[in-house]
Amino acid sequence: MPFVEIYLWRETSDELKKEMLIKEVSKKVSEITGAPLDAVEILITEIPKANWGKGGIPASKWQI
Amino acid sequence: MPFVEIYLWRETSDELKKEMLIKEVSKKVSEITGAPLDAVEILITEIPKANWGKGGIPASKWQI
Amino acid sequence: MPFVEIYLWRETSDELKKEMLIKEVSKKVSEITGAPLDAVEILITEIPKANWGKGGIPASKWQI
Amino acid sequence: MPFVEIYLWRETSDELKKEMLIKEVSKKVSEITGAPLDAVEILITEIPKANWGKGGIPASKWQI
Amino acid sequence: MPFVEIYLWRETSDELKKEMLIKEVSKKVSEITGAPLDAVEILITEIPKANWGKGGIPASKWQI
Amino acid sequence: MPFVEIYLWRETSDELKKEMLIKEVSKKVSEITGAPLDAVEILITEIPKANWGKGGIPASKWQI
Repeated sequence: MPFVEIYLWRETSDELKKEMLIKEVSKKVSEITGAPLDAVEILITEIPKANWGKGGIPASKWQI
Repeated sequence: MPFVEIYLWRETSDELKKEMLIKEVSKKVSEITGAPLDAVEILITEIPKANWGKGGIPASKWQI
Repeated sequence: MPFVEIYLWRETSDELKKEMLIKEVSKKVSEITGAPLDAVEILITEIPKANWGKGGIPASKWQI
Repeated sequence: MPFVEIYLWRETSDELKKEMLIKEVSKKVSEITGAPLDAVEILITEIPKANWGKGGIPASKWQI
Repeated sequence: MPFVEIYLWRETSDELKKEMLIKEVSKKVSEITGAPLDAVEILITEIPKANWGKGGIPASKWQI
Repeated sequence: MPFVEIYLWRETSDELKKEMLIKEVSKKVSEITGAPLDAVEILITEIPKANWGKGGIPASKWQI
């Protein structure tokens, strides 16, 4: 603890982004909470756009 | 917010079901809570039957 | 299964809303997925507005 | 209820381990809480090592 | 990792039960997965019966 | 999306820490993922030390 779970679009996720998130968000959370960096854990969950919706419409069908 | 997470069997899930759930459950939740439809978010997570158990037995081994 | 988790603002939640959500969302999810009503489970989690943020600002400080 | 969610490394998970966890953890939780075995549910989520980090470093890059 | 989240009824939970669950479930999960005991983490979440429903009815209204 | 859930000790959490986390972690996640700041959501869950254990021992009983 602290424990952080981050949900990302699977379609735009990649190894570099995940590694950067684990590094930078851990550092930020450690700074703000005062917990040692080594105590911060991060879990990344990658979500397909068809599995997430807002306003009744899946993100896979949003017009941008 | 409101935010809704729905777990489904991966084996019996499909794109149409997911789209219907996002549409209809968002509408219901908006009606009941009074939150604007556009504020409702839904995340669907699809679970293999071997990863969910009840009474000590994975769903993949249930006799029906 | 299906299993549904619903996050609501604690400040605007009440027993009636929760009971209605459990009743109506269960029915909807049963209809759409084809799962028997009795198999649908719903968990409601109530979140204080200071614990949820969007765009870097807690909901407790949003101007509306 | 009780409901139990178990996160495992995807790389070292297998069907036997998952079945054993569902069986043995359900039994333990039923014993300790007094809930009937049949009421205990378990969900297993398998996590790739690149998606979990501690101390700012993904588990996929830990030196052991 | 492994990481375990256990949901209990708030109404029937107590400190001893939680301590026993943390002790015994950690041991079981360590044995079955082969992970060192010290790597197993457990989070307990206590749920009021009005916030969990099955078959469209909150547990607070179940007749037993 | 992206959506971030942060678990903190209830005993050492406070309004300022939560507000800082929402502000700074949102900014970091937006920078790294390229998502607009306004799309980033953060949920903070505060955990009593008796409800989280590691190595079979609740954090409320750790000797430091």
